[in-house]
Amino acid sequence: MKKSEYKKWQRKTCEYFEKAHIVLTEKEKENIEVADFGLGKIEKVGLQLVVYVNTERVCAKELVLFPFQTCPEHKHIEKEETFRCRFGKVYLYVEGEPTANRKCKPPEGDEKYYTVFHEIELNPGDQYTIMPNTLHWFQAGEEGAVVSEFSTKSTDETDIFSDPRIKRIPVIEDD
Amino acid sequence: MKKSEYKKWQRKTCEYFEKAHIVLTEKEKENIEVADFGLGKIEKVGLQLVVYVNTERVCAKELVLFPFQTCPEHKHIEKEETFRCRFGKVYLYVEGEPTANRKCKPPEGDEKYYTVFHEIELNPGDQYTIMPNTLHWFQAGEEGAVVSEFSTKSTDETDIFSDPRIKRIPVIEDD
Ligand SMILES: [Zn+2]
Ligand SMILES: [Zn+2]
Repeated sequence: MKKSEYKKWQRKTCEYFEKAHIVLTEKEKENIEVADFGLGKIEKVGLQLVVYVNTERVCAKELVLFPFQTCPEHKHIEKEETFRCRFGKVYLYVEGEPTANRKCKPPEGDEKYYTVFHEIELNPGDQYTIMPNTLHWFQAGEEGAVVSEFSTKSTDETDIFSDPRIKRIPVIEDD
Repeated sequence: MKKSEYKKWQRKTCEYFEKAHIVLTEKEKENIEVADFGLGKIEKVGLQLVVYVNTERVCAKELVLFPFQTCPEHKHIEKEETFRCRFGKVYLYVEGEPTANRKCKPPEGDEKYYTVFHEIELNPGDQYTIMPNTLHWFQAGEEGAVVSEFSTKSTDETDIFSDPRIKRIPVIEDD
């Protein structure tokens, strides 16, 4: 992604933090991570985040999803994570009985990389804990979403995505 | 503490969560923990909290301090914790060079149980990580404070307080 475009999505992300009344330092705002997962369609598949802390034992992040944006299906080998919705609405899909009449569909063209369909709806104040080695993906509702993540150490480079085309670590190019 | 009084402080705590725009479920509001540490002067020494999650590996809480309220000096054997200020102001005191012209004093009469005086001021968006076995205490500014805590597993009953009179687990009596 071009640097100018990256900065545009960072600014957009800040708007959601403002809606959620989450205060960030200037340095945190400059360091907002914008992940398009290497798929080149960030408004459909992507995730924006601020990492507050990530030590050997504890990690806390704030995630932003734009309206209807999807974080693609993946699992973590070691990491346990709790998602707590702060603003908007997020539909979380995990292993288990597929929910009938689901609210979300996988991104168009990527259907074969989505395999778990047990739906959990998270509104502000709702949370859900995902244990290691559990496949999950999530999509925001029409207002977008801000979600706090509380977890053990994050090692994004070891996440296992169902879609082999995905590159988790963003590549930023000069304009 | 009498149950009616406990409920009064729970309601007061909700006001601070509202100021910080933190959304809680009704069940979480009913389960707000009010700790007076057995000292019977909660407006001076106490802590109010909501535990979001506390598994074998991860804990996340939201803390409320009333104006000028102090959480007394203690340390944790195993637990690593990060405090992130969300609303108001909190002065955190940790081991290290005592700060000159400190903003807070220990609660009157309890001075001998306060031994660390390196001051860290946390305003909204500021955070600080405390590693295990590090003594610390904290006091809110004039507006009170709301502070997120991200940590490893909490086992409150194993916290070590400098003041031997302290009882960490609240005792609630019927009216
Ligand atoms: Zn995940
Ligand atoms: Zn502590």
